[in-house]
Amino acid sequence: MSTLCRPAVAVPENIVTLDESIDVARRLHADNPRLPLALRLIGNTGVRKRHLVQPLEQTLRHPGFEARNLVYEREAKRRVPPVVYQALANAELGVRDIDLLIYVSCTGFTMPSMTAWLVEALGMRSDTRQLPIAQLGCAAGGAAINRAHDFSTAYPDANVLIVACEFCSLCYQPGDDDIGSLLSDGLFGDAVAAAVVRGSGGTGVRLERNASYLIPHTRDWISYAVKATGFHFRLDKRVPGTMEPLAPVITDLVSRHTWDASALDFYVVHAGGPRILDDLSRFLGVDKHAFRHSRATLTEYGNIASAVVFDALDRLFAEGEPSVGGRGIVAGFGPGITAEMALGTWTRGAPPVEHHRRGRTRGRVAGQRSAPVHPATSPVRPG
Amino acid sequence: MSTLCRPAVAVPENIVTLDESIDVARRLHADNPRLPLALRLIGNTGVRKRHLVQPLEQTLRHPGFEARNLVYEREAKRRVPPVVYQALANAELGVRDIDLLIYVSCTGFTMPSMTAWLVEALGMRSDTRQLPIAQLGCAAGGAAINRAHDFSTAYPDANVLIVACEFCSLCYQPGDDDIGSLLSDGLFGDAVAAAVVRGSGGTGVRLERNASYLIPHTRDWISYAVKATGFHFRLDKRVPGTMEPLAPVITDLVSRHTWDASALDFYVVHAGGPRILDDLSRFLGVDKHAFRHSRATLTEYGNIASAVVFDALDRLFAEGEPSVGGRGIVAGFGPGITAEMALGTWTRGAPPVEHHRRGRTRGRVAGQRSAPVHPATSPVRPG
Repeated sequence: MSTLCRPAVAVPENIVTLDESIDVARRLHADNPRLPLALRLIGNTGVRKRHLVQPLEQTLRHPGFEARNLVYEREAKRRVPPVVYQALANAELGVRDIDLLIYVSCTGFTMPSMTAWLVEALGMRSDTRQLPIAQLGCAAGGAAINRAHDFSTAYPDANVLIVACEFCSLCYQPGDDDIGSLLSDGLFGDAVAAAVVRGSGGTGVRLERNASYLIPHTRDWISYAVKATGFHFRLDKRVPGTMEPLAPVITDLVSRHTWDASALDFYVVHAGGPRILDDLSRFLGVDKHAFRHSRATLTEYGNIASAVVFDALDRLFAEGEPSVGGRGIVAGFGPGITAEMALGTWTRGAPPVEHHRRGRTRGRVAGQRSAPVHPATSPVRPG
Repeated sequence: MSTLCRPAVAVPENIVTLDESIDVARRLHADNPRLPLALRLIGNTGVRKRHLVQPLEQTLRHPGFEARNLVYEREAKRRVPPVVYQALANAELGVRDIDLLIYVSCTGFTMPSMTAWLVEALGMRSDTRQLPIAQLGCAAGGAAINRAHDFSTAYPDANVLIVACEFCSLCYQPGDDDIGSLLSDGLFGDAVAAAVVRGSGGTGVRLERNASYLIPHTRDWISYAVKATGFHFRLDKRVPGTMEPLAPVITDLVSRHTWDASALDFYVVHAGGPRILDDLSRFLGVDKHAFRHSRATLTEYGNIASAVVFDALDRLFAEGEPSVGGRGIVAGFGPGITAEMALGTWTRGAPPVEHHRRGRTRGRVAGQRSAPVHPATSPVRPG
């Protein structure tokens, strides 16, 4: 049984507050008749601040797709390693204990993938499997957890490292002024998250069942227009309503696991926006308080795409872990519209050693290159 | 034990011969001092013809990244479904028997991925897992087979559909005239391939072991430069020499499986270029004849990226299957430089029914929308 251990999360040092977001929108779109509605929608998101890889004024300038993508690569190389080291420390594993590296990101594109760079730069084993996923958007965090679960099911002692690197600010498109774009300009933030799925041992969510679901006839609701200027995010106004058709799917999935979706011990879900959380609460029949970790992510960081589920899970750890045996769900939602859902039980591995519960790591973890712990290899390896 | 069944492959109707490739290079790069070397290299590839989604003159015009990517999407929607239906028929399964859809392509980028479109357009189950991979290049065919193998190992009765859709001609960049680009202009071709990995039953390669390997310090040898004009393929002159460091890795992998890499019954490998095949022959100590299927793909279609391994495997089927129990390897090579290797044994399912061995499907399979066979669901499902 594989366990999703405590994630590590880092957000960049450049902060933009709600007030600043609103000021920018007013300044840049003064003549846009959709501005009042956009400002109202931005205010309703509950996002208080976001963190960006570049200062705000630099973010607002588009230097071209090529230059931006190079910024993505530079920032990823700088910001991902410390988060990975922290996630490995949380799981009490070293880089060479990892059998599969899943790297999810929809905000930059490189080939070879960042997986190849990480394997070399971090000194991972040359036979580490690489699985880069660029096209699942915000659902990719959930998808990564689920594919890690599958892999661990196939190879019971294998360990999987997941990295979610989302620099949404590098997809800002100054020329886009439809209502979905104006809202997105005030909603998305940047973050790097990492987490290990341990094949055996570990403290966190013991993964038991996963499922994917594509909501019919919603394929155009969340999408990229791919242009010379890069990826242009397209958000349909119907997206906030997707929890209504999805809630019965979640209920059914949980029931098949002989659990009750309205009475789980923890809910870690993608905080795409406030209505997602409100509607889930309503349609699952769960108190809003259950989604407090996801809401905190949204409030503090904005929608950080595939990294949301890891940050929300990290907040659950920070608050105080559920009781061993507690039942919960982890779910990501993204383009398709696709939901990636995982059910699991809280589990606790060997007694925590000194470095384990060092508390929540907020802000930059840079410089924290914690020495990998337990560099020993697992007894059984795939391959 | 999961089985990689007979692939289906289709190449587009627009043919460009070696002579035409050479004429084009002479016409467009008359003043380039590297032209004579490029022509020699192109001649040495052994590529006799290639198939393109657009006529040659249209291929040579770059309409911009946005327009090109829309051509990719349009052509994929048109050309992938018939190939999928043929692959399903080869595996005696229907669309609703598929639990995981892996779509690999490095020559176009969409979000949502083509997986979401295929699930809806083909009437696949809404709970089909989607795994789009865009960043593993030519290695992605092997990676798809290996991740399908892992998934089937986790869920023994699950079935996986793999699609490899590569329209390399849509990455042609008129302004690139370095030697790697000139060579690539005469090397790469377009194709769509699909194959099913059946959880139980089926005829083909029973997958037994897989592995990945990243050759150290080669990360920049095969890469994309991402620009406003799209993906610019960069090929280092050292790439053809990569089989020398890789051959011992293959030998070791095969030995760990208690087999002998020099004495397998079939070799299905990525035909990146002629030297790849020559060197594998030399360093593994295997007669060149063993790579005849991969070489035929190269000769007839050019380097069709992630689709090569499926086409070479299809040619192995067409020639006459190996004996049941025959041992073999399937390997893809791509950026990283990464090798994705699978070892398996030839297996034969239930006696073939009428539609099964309909022989090699060459050229367009369009219009062939063979009715999915056996729409029944498998007894055990993941999820």
